[in-house]
Amino acid sequence: MSLFALSPKASALKEKLETFVNERCIPAESEYERHIARFAGADRWTPSAVPPVIERLKSEAQALGFWNLFLPHPVPDHLISKDGGDVVLVPSMYLSNREYGILCEVMGRSALAPEACNCSAPDTGNMEVLLKHGTNDQQSTYLKPLLQGKMRSAFLMTEPDVASSDARNLQAKLTKSVGEDGRVRYVLSGRKWWSTGAMDPRCGVALVVAEMDSGHSSLTPPSEEKQSKFGNQTVVIVPMSHPGIKCVRPLTVFGYDDAPHGHAEVLLENVELDESAVILGEGRGFEISQSRLGPGRIHHCMRAVGLAARCYEIMLERTFQRQTFGKYLHEHGSCRELIADSASDLEAARLLTLACAEEIDRLGARGAREKIALIKVTVPELTSRVVDRAVQIFGGAGVCGDFPLARALVGLRSLRIADGPDAVHKQSLALMELKKAKRRMQSRM
Amino acid sequence: MSLFALSPKASALKEKLETFVNERCIPAESEYERHIARFAGADRWTPSAVPPVIERLKSEAQALGFWNLFLPHPVPDHLISKDGGDVVLVPSMYLSNREYGILCEVMGRSALAPEACNCSAPDTGNMEVLLKHGTNDQQSTYLKPLLQGKMRSAFLMTEPDVASSDARNLQAKLTKSVGEDGRVRYVLSGRKWWSTGAMDPRCGVALVVAEMDSGHSSLTPPSEEKQSKFGNQTVVIVPMSHPGIKCVRPLTVFGYDDAPHGHAEVLLENVELDESAVILGEGRGFEISQSRLGPGRIHHCMRAVGLAARCYEIMLERTFQRQTFGKYLHEHGSCRELIADSASDLEAARLLTLACAEEIDRLGARGAREKIALIKVTVPELTSRVVDRAVQIFGGAGVCGDFPLARALVGLRSLRIADGPDAVHKQSLALMELKKAKRRMQSRM
Amino acid sequence: MSLFALSPKASALKEKLETFVNERCIPAESEYERHIARFAGADRWTPSAVPPVIERLKSEAQALGFWNLFLPHPVPDHLISKDGGDVVLVPSMYLSNREYGILCEVMGRSALAPEACNCSAPDTGNMEVLLKHGTNDQQSTYLKPLLQGKMRSAFLMTEPDVASSDARNLQAKLTKSVGEDGRVRYVLSGRKWWSTGAMDPRCGVALVVAEMDSGHSSLTPPSEEKQSKFGNQTVVIVPMSHPGIKCVRPLTVFGYDDAPHGHAEVLLENVELDESAVILGEGRGFEISQSRLGPGRIHHCMRAVGLAARCYEIMLERTFQRQTFGKYLHEHGSCRELIADSASDLEAARLLTLACAEEIDRLGARGAREKIALIKVTVPELTSRVVDRAVQIFGGAGVCGDFPLARALVGLRSLRIADGPDAVHKQSLALMELKKAKRRMQSRM
Amino acid sequence: MSLFALSPKASALKEKLETFVNERCIPAESEYERHIARFAGADRWTPSAVPPVIERLKSEAQALGFWNLFLPHPVPDHLISKDGGDVVLVPSMYLSNREYGILCEVMGRSALAPEACNCSAPDTGNMEVLLKHGTNDQQSTYLKPLLQGKMRSAFLMTEPDVASSDARNLQAKLTKSVGEDGRVRYVLSGRKWWSTGAMDPRCGVALVVAEMDSGHSSLTPPSEEKQSKFGNQTVVIVPMSHPGIKCVRPLTVFGYDDAPHGHAEVLLENVELDESAVILGEGRGFEISQSRLGPGRIHHCMRAVGLAARCYEIMLERTFQRQTFGKYLHEHGSCRELIADSASDLEAARLLTLACAEEIDRLGARGAREKIALIKVTVPELTSRVVDRAVQIFGGAGVCGDFPLARALVGLRSLRIADGPDAVHKQSLALMELKKAKRRMQSRM
Repeated sequence: MSLFALSPKASALKEKLETFVNERCIPAESEYERHIARFAGADRWTPSAVPPVIERLKSEAQALGFWNLFLPHPVPDHLISKDGGDVVLVPSMYLSNREYGILCEVMGRSALAPEACNCSAPDTGNMEVLLKHGTNDQQSTYLKPLLQGKMRSAFLMTEPDVASSDARNLQAKLTKSVGEDGRVRYVLSGRKWWSTGAMDPRCGVALVVAEMDSGHSSLTPPSEEKQSKFGNQTVVIVPMSHPGIKCVRPLTVFGYDDAPHGHAEVLLENVELDESAVILGEGRGFEISQSRLGPGRIHHCMRAVGLAARCYEIMLERTFQRQTFGKYLHEHGSCRELIADSASDLEAARLLTLACAEEIDRLGARGAREKIALIKVTVPELTSRVVDRAVQIFGGAGVCGDFPLARALVGLRSLRIADGPDAVHKQSLALMELKKAKRRMQSRM
Repeated sequence: MSLFALSPKASALKEKLETFVNERCIPAESEYERHIARFAGADRWTPSAVPPVIERLKSEAQALGFWNLFLPHPVPDHLISKDGGDVVLVPSMYLSNREYGILCEVMGRSALAPEACNCSAPDTGNMEVLLKHGTNDQQSTYLKPLLQGKMRSAFLMTEPDVASSDARNLQAKLTKSVGEDGRVRYVLSGRKWWSTGAMDPRCGVALVVAEMDSGHSSLTPPSEEKQSKFGNQTVVIVPMSHPGIKCVRPLTVFGYDDAPHGHAEVLLENVELDESAVILGEGRGFEISQSRLGPGRIHHCMRAVGLAARCYEIMLERTFQRQTFGKYLHEHGSCRELIADSASDLEAARLLTLACAEEIDRLGARGAREKIALIKVTVPELTSRVVDRAVQIFGGAGVCGDFPLARALVGLRSLRIADGPDAVHKQSLALMELKKAKRRMQSRM
Repeated sequence: MSLFALSPKASALKEKLETFVNERCIPAESEYERHIARFAGADRWTPSAVPPVIERLKSEAQALGFWNLFLPHPVPDHLISKDGGDVVLVPSMYLSNREYGILCEVMGRSALAPEACNCSAPDTGNMEVLLKHGTNDQQSTYLKPLLQGKMRSAFLMTEPDVASSDARNLQAKLTKSVGEDGRVRYVLSGRKWWSTGAMDPRCGVALVVAEMDSGHSSLTPPSEEKQSKFGNQTVVIVPMSHPGIKCVRPLTVFGYDDAPHGHAEVLLENVELDESAVILGEGRGFEISQSRLGPGRIHHCMRAVGLAARCYEIMLERTFQRQTFGKYLHEHGSCRELIADSASDLEAARLLTLACAEEIDRLGARGAREKIALIKVTVPELTSRVVDRAVQIFGGAGVCGDFPLARALVGLRSLRIADGPDAVHKQSLALMELKKAKRRMQSRM
Repeated sequence: MSLFALSPKASALKEKLETFVNERCIPAESEYERHIARFAGADRWTPSAVPPVIERLKSEAQALGFWNLFLPHPVPDHLISKDGGDVVLVPSMYLSNREYGILCEVMGRSALAPEACNCSAPDTGNMEVLLKHGTNDQQSTYLKPLLQGKMRSAFLMTEPDVASSDARNLQAKLTKSVGEDGRVRYVLSGRKWWSTGAMDPRCGVALVVAEMDSGHSSLTPPSEEKQSKFGNQTVVIVPMSHPGIKCVRPLTVFGYDDAPHGHAEVLLENVELDESAVILGEGRGFEISQSRLGPGRIHHCMRAVGLAARCYEIMLERTFQRQTFGKYLHEHGSCRELIADSASDLEAARLLTLACAEEIDRLGARGAREKIALIKVTVPELTSRVVDRAVQIFGGAGVCGDFPLARALVGLRSLRIADGPDAVHKQSLALMELKKAKRRMQSRM
């Protein structure tokens, strides 16, 4: 009955994964960082900047069976047919969200593990979209190399010129026209940012959310237009080799550029596309981005718990290593309070995340959307507090690059904004609670 | 796999219990309060002050099968043998801690429900002690009427003259002597307070924690003596009719005296007892009080969740009934944030409590003592926040007696002190975490 | 330049006042409480329930010159003319708000001191209204006995049936008619609550906020009407002896009824009044209640600081008296953190309050209304935290009546609601900040 | 009486300084950042990496009279004698701490302003030490170019191998010997980090805290030795050109390296020095570092307030520029709560800082050390909250480099560690409070 319970098979997988993450990925982090630190400016986004160690870890993960564990169910046959060794590896078992949550927490312990296991954002979300909604052609061209870990991808939604937490504000335009040959053409224009992975030299494709350009001057009153706007959003596939897509600059997250993966500002200038670029159909973009963000949000939470757990553990160890005023840190009562508070926060974050995953398993992502909103807000906050205390206990060592703490703290801080800021999710959560309350009140009358 | 899952039988029980609590207990609260409000001073602790409605509810609960649900396992045969109709009702099913947790939350919604179902503190804890450790005689004399709901009881541990959060400070003395007839005699002396229920006119018995008086002058150095002191504590049974036990005065909890149950300061003056008064054996008091407090702490948490859930629900309803500045309260964004935060706190409190109960089921109270310490600190804090927001949204109505909010808030505040203050449980929790960390560190070497 | 600086004269006054509060008022508290505890039910609101000790303290305060210190400036001559010894005592010096703030903090240390010094709510606010806006007759009849401490008073604003935090919601009606004799008559009807002091047997008069009943059916669209509604509020004087005014019941604040002063629900049924009852003029009620609440809010804050300071001091002393785990409480690092946090909160609360008072001195209450809103929200929060920590350190002793802590904590909690809940003041404060920001932005263009 | 009051002269200075900071420094920030961004790796610490704009701003500040404003009193004549134009500019007026606090807040608004005005850490602290304790030679060689802004400096205290928050842990050794010529020689060895400015190409000198190496094996019991250790610390001057001092690597603060100033790890290997290197005398290091840190801590707080104020202002402006869900951000009630909370936090931080500065003016740094500890803990926390809310309202824009918010947030976070972590200052503060409480208790007996 415990949320942490696993089948014997999954349990064995977890144990092996822990060994892989703790003994292979975590020790490789410093090599990874030393490699990328050698590159400056534009060089940080070139193939040579990609630390070779990550490819080595990917091979190991494949060999050990930790590959594409995020996959909720089998991939289409046309992808796994072995044509001359060009294999798509699928997991030996398809995990429930709750079980994946437990493994994903383990991967979250190391910044390298998710990529090593081909379970990293934004690729997982993009693969899920292509798996669920892609045509055979889209799947062969993009999903296959993504599943193989031979390509990376980006998801372009957020825009610098509007408050993107309200998705109706998005302004990137997809203008449709029909040529003399009767063939449909689209032109995509706009500016995106926080396009994670778009500058990665291995990034082969971007999924872009754009608004259908109605073409006519806006005669409908603004408020009405707003309401219906979701019906106008479309997701299109743009290969990164397309001349119309340009990475303008890398963005930093509290001083980290996260090269060679990073976060880009991207300019889309007259990107010409045809019908094969559209996913699912015109006007179905909101549907796609919503279905994509749900699992993404909980994956973030799972990894956040793992990251905080690791920070918590090294904090505990530090208290045995340093002394002040004649006592080890762990002997100070105030230090013990920090430990107790962190144990509580971590336990709450873990339970909330797994209970949400379990609810997705039981009710589907839509049925569990209240819990998804709830953990999207709560888990970054809880895990941030844990890491913040670890930073404080480490002192100067906590804010520099010698330990994963500083990076973790700002990463978790950013999670309160990424995929929608707290304020938006709190309003959604409250609305769902109010709706239930209203129903209860009515049923009593 | 959900922590909230119940067997069909338990699920049916829960549904019926919800109806009982919502439709019988909650509506009876105002009658209960009107009755007791008629009594003043010493009269508040007399049999006539006991609101008759509670006896009516007890009969209903018995008839419906909600009686002694807290019982973890069957009671001895000698208690249930039906001798002329003097029946001890036992539950139709023995619930796991997790399942009881779900039902206990339901009972926590109304201040009357736990007593109506014979599941209220401190009786449940005392019944568990007597069930586990009592002699046949002790069980017949005290456990039986308690299980029948014909008597109430008190547990006397905390003392006004020392910081009782450190149990080694307790000073009540049990002096042993052997008479000329060769029979062992004890004399108990001391002063206790926060003796919940001792002033209840129905209270028939008190379990008292006292220190064996070694008799010799204290030659051992103080620190050593401290360490070994636990070995000196003994629990004895004192009938409230004993002339040496006197309720000195009722205590208030933030202005509430909780009559006719209440909290007493009790003077023990030369209370003469014989061997039949000792539970389990001399020097085993700490063992008893620890085993007693474990489940007690989690029952408190379960009820706290139910109480906060009720406050949360009436808060939601209030937001549909009042308007400010041209909008219903629920239409204000800042009000919605309070709702979202409360939903999160409540969900976390619930999960933590049930996960702890589940761990007790799996590992026993001792195996789960880290989680017990964790929820002892966390759940009162989380639920307090929920109720605090409800009070704020209700405004003046929230602090007066018209709604259960004010009483709930101070009750939950007191929980941060009752059964040991936060500070003590945080230190214990941290020590257990540190021990685990140390083991991990050693295993790596 | 220090906010705490006082003129030598005021400094001497402060020192004497400290002695009076610490040595006369605080020691008298238990006598006060024992006296009122002897009365139950309706008797708690009778003249004999008023503890005689308060009259003794009032005489002492008068003799020592601590009388009406809140008075901002001289009272009219017609009040102080000594006609046969019926003197109105005025302070030997008129204090600035900042200086009064320092003395008011001292008075806040004891629940008895403000009344002993004739500086207690709601009388001070009512006296200020009458002093500023009352006719000579109103002043002779009501202000004079109030200034003499021979009568107490109430201010009836909040209503149970609406969210009174939006003053436009108030529903008590004042219906005007002109009799055949050409004389104007008013009839006042409505229900009020949280009418502090209305049940006090010494309460002689209530100031009531009511809405002018336009008489015509509401043809103006609701929203417009709302906006203009403030123009409809009028404040009238009702002697408590008027047959149309009835105290329905006392309200409790987290279990405390605060008898014999207390908080009442009051029914106004066809209270007939004539023009002499109107203060300032019809439709000027909002103006009066605003001007009244400003200083009232900061007096509350001043007293809150004093109360928290006292709780903090006894908390510090307690840490020298109790031991746990072989150490005095003050030797525990976690206890020291609570002390440090409390020292910081107290210092912040003090500075914010005095800086606000100083700004009122400099810019007037209207000019300082942003700071007033700011401290109305911040100071109850800061001081609550201090007292909450004190309660926690005291444990069981902290929640009962043996120390002023429990009463203080719920009193400060109520301050977050009294005179307008946090939410309303935060919105006002933000609006003022936004207005300033807008001006800055415009000035740059 | 307002803490914000300034003399007409200082008021004029403030107004001019605001113009300088807002119109010259803030607009220059992007030029500064673009310049340094062009350099990578070791090049970031070379003279060409220093953005020329800072020298331009320094000239402007000198011309405007904003130079060395931190100076508490006149410098010795031998420094200001004009020998051929080599002038040391001193302020036209010596400011009190409170007045400097108000100006320092203004400088804190821009990362460039303190350096532009020659008022930046760690130089100000070093200059104060040299001014107070330096010999004429030390002053001519080091203080003069520092006051002229021709050189920068570092203060080497914190060490990577010990918990430096307990200064007694420091391990850098100063070994003394007397040569055959009778001259005293010292050899300094150790490892330091968080040596702010040591890698700055303009850094000419480091002040180093080291422990006198007693030479004999440690026979005194450890605890005694600990207690007396402060008497063993000495501060020596080491020119950066000394071959024994090596900057090992730059440290990052949450991803920022703060080049070309930065924070270094520094290796001291057999740094040979003679008597002229010692400041004040052997064994007086603790005295120096304490006297140095006092004002430094409050300067940090002053700048923190200015930085938070700027972030708050741009947050307010942002709320007028972005819309979500059909409303400007400032129209959302939840956004207004963030504004109100920030206004309160900022006001509290400001008042606490200025009241502390005023107390230093009145009682000296030693007399005000309780208040210094208090604001050292409180102000970084309060200002962090303000900036954290600004980041949240900005969303993605808040965490990247386009606005000063992200840098500000991690800078303020680091302040909770720099110059001693919160935990240490809270313990000191509590001890001072406890000492006062004990005195009060004793005086009553």
